[in-house]
Amino acid sequence: MVADREMVESNSDEILRDAQTEDVAFLVVGDPFGATTHTDIVLRARELAIPIQSIPNASILSGIGACGLQLYNFGQTVSMVFFTENWRPASFYDRVKENRSIGLHTLVLLDIKVKEPNLDAMARGRIVYEPPRFMTVGTCAKQMLEVEDERKEGVYGAESLAIGAARVGGTQQTFVSGTLKELCDSDDRLGPPLHSLVLLGRRTHELEHDFVRDFAVDRDNWDKIWRADYQNKT
Amino acid sequence: MVADREMVESNSDEILRDAQTEDVAFLVVGDPFGATTHTDIVLRARELAIPIQSIPNASILSGIGACGLQLYNFGQTVSMVFFTENWRPASFYDRVKENRSIGLHTLVLLDIKVKEPNLDAMARGRIVYEPPRFMTVGTCAKQMLEVEDERKEGVYGAESLAIGAARVGGTQQTFVSGTLKELCDSDDRLGPPLHSLVLLGRRTHELEHDFVRDFAVDRDNWDKIWRADYQNKT
Repeated sequence: MVADREMVESNSDEILRDAQTEDVAFLVVGDPFGATTHTDIVLRARELAIPIQSIPNASILSGIGACGLQLYNFGQTVSMVFFTENWRPASFYDRVKENRSIGLHTLVLLDIKVKEPNLDAMARGRIVYEPPRFMTVGTCAKQMLEVEDERKEGVYGAESLAIGAARVGGTQQTFVSGTLKELCDSDDRLGPPLHSLVLLGRRTHELEHDFVRDFAVDRDNWDKIWRADYQNKT
Repeated sequence: MVADREMVESNSDEILRDAQTEDVAFLVVGDPFGATTHTDIVLRARELAIPIQSIPNASILSGIGACGLQLYNFGQTVSMVFFTENWRPASFYDRVKENRSIGLHTLVLLDIKVKEPNLDAMARGRIVYEPPRFMTVGTCAKQMLEVEDERKEGVYGAESLAIGAARVGGTQQTFVSGTLKELCDSDDRLGPPLHSLVLLGRRTHELEHDFVRDFAVDRDNWDKIWRADYQNKT
């Protein structure tokens, strides 16, 4: 059986329907417990006394270590959604603030829009899906700076160091490091989706510096900001 | 080639020796970037202009999600080593304090002693290795409570909720949840190594409660403490 996310969220009983009498396998992208959705289906299986076995997998949550920052120094992970005129959820800002207050890096997972219905067509009684959209590092960096401009709590700024990541774990995996301002214009260097972003905390190690500066947009600028704001600030 | 950790740390050039002219594969347990060691060998390869390709893998850092706590709400990961009479490193305590100050869970990775030389034999000029030792959840919980007793900063206590995890990702994966005090005596339920421990933060969700109470040592006690100290405390 192939089940998409909509099916898991709204109709997990359909997935579990025959599981009392036969083996049902359910494949997901990344680690099965990266999302609440899958915790929910395990709970449902438990209620129905269906034994389950989960198999761990590589996940962006650990795969991001390939950017060269120690996984031990990451705080909570946040998500960034596409802003619209009327909907600009900024709860990520408070989480980033917490992480930075104790020196930790923040992994920002970027919005994916697939199977979004076209609203005009829907009004005319037809279901037409929009082409898929994947948020880029550039859009994420811009939205982050917009929110800092609104909130003005100095959680980060245009000169804060970050790493843009593209296609982590794939053969064409690419990283670009720079200030948030520089990353606003680095989508061409990063290439096709999926993208993620890591905002650095001040708890850094010289080894990380050596690793990450290698893919800096501007190494001189990276070195200068690193020395001033990050090095030996733990 | 088979290289153990000692070889990676002290002699990475041996691993890279023929890599200019032939393919060299290097296999590790978990994700290759879970440890500084492997960042170092990538840097060395870069200096030698040897192209490298890393493949992400399942890791305890994401696999721990199988315990039912959302991975988004984990803070920095800490390590716990076997205490000796004269060596009781407690830097983990400050990290746990930081995590708990912002409501986050803490994954505690437990000490593994393999290839430890017997000191008496060494004094007599012979190399004899001790049998391997793997820290259990019980030992970890006891050491955590000892350090709280010394530091007395109220970061956690005997009644703090935690989850003991054994053989995560394996077919015999086992979880036991309870207070730190209860977990001091839960090694029999957890069984053979490897063990890990998760100390809960107050940022919890009802779904997590339902999932985790299922493997509680004492469900009534779990419910009581959850309601008093964790529920709706975000």
